[in-house]
Amino acid sequence: MSYLSEGNSVETVNARMSAASDARLRRVMASLVTHLHGFIKDVELTEAEWETAIGFLTRTGQMCGDARQEFILLSDALGVSMLVDAINHRAPEGATDSTVFGPFHVEGAPELPMGTCISLDGKGEICLYQGHVLDLDGKPIADALVDVWSDNADGFYDVQQPDLQPKWNNRGVFRTGPDGSYAFRGIKPVSYPIPDDGPVGQMLGALGRHPWRPAHMHFRVTAPGHARLITHIFVGGDSYLTSDAVFGVKASLIADFLPVHSPTEQWRTDFNFVLRPTTNPA
Amino acid sequence: MSYLSEGNSVETVNARMSAASDARLRRVMASLVTHLHGFIKDVELTEAEWETAIGFLTRTGQMCGDARQEFILLSDALGVSMLVDAINHRAPEGATDSTVFGPFHVEGAPELPMGTCISLDGKGEICLYQGHVLDLDGKPIADALVDVWSDNADGFYDVQQPDLQPKWNNRGVFRTGPDGSYAFRGIKPVSYPIPDDGPVGQMLGALGRHPWRPAHMHFRVTAPGHARLITHIFVGGDSYLTSDAVFGVKASLIADFLPVHSPTEQWRTDFNFVLRPTTNPA
Repeated sequence: MSYLSEGNSVETVNARMSAASDARLRRVMASLVTHLHGFIKDVELTEAEWETAIGFLTRTGQMCGDARQEFILLSDALGVSMLVDAINHRAPEGATDSTVFGPFHVEGAPELPMGTCISLDGKGEICLYQGHVLDLDGKPIADALVDVWSDNADGFYDVQQPDLQPKWNNRGVFRTGPDGSYAFRGIKPVSYPIPDDGPVGQMLGALGRHPWRPAHMHFRVTAPGHARLITHIFVGGDSYLTSDAVFGVKASLIADFLPVHSPTEQWRTDFNFVLRPTTNPA
Repeated sequence: MSYLSEGNSVETVNARMSAASDARLRRVMASLVTHLHGFIKDVELTEAEWETAIGFLTRTGQMCGDARQEFILLSDALGVSMLVDAINHRAPEGATDSTVFGPFHVEGAPELPMGTCISLDGKGEICLYQGHVLDLDGKPIADALVDVWSDNADGFYDVQQPDLQPKWNNRGVFRTGPDGSYAFRGIKPVSYPIPDDGPVGQMLGALGRHPWRPAHMHFRVTAPGHARLITHIFVGGDSYLTSDAVFGVKASLIADFLPVHSPTEQWRTDFNFVLRPTTNPA
């Protein structure tokens, strides 16, 4: 038996866990304590800095509510969300890359006929999104559900402005046909800042970082027998592609948006989604 | 420019900080990101575990209020508070060891005549606490302020039961005389569980850890020209000395409580406090 000291702190804390507790939990907590204590020893955290950290974490939790998840923003801003995504979705060659889910998805958006426009407020420039959902062999996947969502032309998701936007504005679900194709219309999305009036915004400000995300359309693509794909299509040319506040950009997800002359849209983008099978261990 | 990947995540996040921001903040954040990403990579954190962590941190923040600081409890239970204390108070040979401040101190307790009993509710066994405040050379320090506080015989601090305990129950401040001596009476403290009806209690339960702290009297000793000392005297023989939920025990802080036959007390404990000078860089 030894009491906690600078030298033995990790071993002392981890020795306290009961061998009867869940083995995975013990493994995660032992690593957490190792790295957390390692951080504190590395920087020789002062008592004033510890107090600042306690206050920051407290305010971050207290900022959370029905329409705001400040700890997810913190995870996003520190690259943690993208790292967890990368570790859990190591895509095999040829499969479409994933990116962060984000806090703005809503379950239950209406399933709409192919080609429907999901922008209901009449604002913004309309774009035709089309392509195919394919498997790793390039074969079309029928009956895949393509769940899409984006901000509006002012940079807000409908859940951020529940009184100002029509219900399900810029949201919809589409089902691929026998040839795996999908098509819908929505706005050409605009870049927007993540909510920065809370502790995470203060942190970004102190670090000299901006809160902006490059314009993107969200996709969640699901099909029986295939791994769920959560990703974005980023608008090529956006000024924030190289400095996304949440580190969500991957080169393979940047798409060309082409101007078109059509009564129904001003832009067009073509993008195929390639799903990996659920049985693929990679 | 590279986008975030498993391999470059730390460098990518840390490269985003502006060179114009505070150098110490950059140093702390860079180390935090390094260790946080290191933890996630080490255990290959799953998305479900990430969601659990987000929920846990959110509930921990939301549990905080005027009378409860759940993030300090979390810091305590993970050994972080004691580690920060150890790093910031490396006592030179001969100086009294420090330990955690804890969340139950209240500024402004009354300064009382030497020997006064701070237990005002008539419950518990009374103990005479006495000794000297000394410098590293063994010379007495006059006019040192000895601020003391403990739980009551039921294991609660007065701030936990504002309607049930007399104001300033088990709290007081004493000023040493020319010979550096102090003396007061208070209860022989009892062991008690840290508040365990929140997320931290759930964590301890899942790890097979109990929430108990061994019985102790808190001391904050201050004197001009000397470093502030925050410490406890632990009651020798307590069953929780080797398993303090917050890792606060040090061997040098365990005191003998001796039974006495006196009309004013049933126990006695003698303890000297040795302060280091503020100018001592150690």
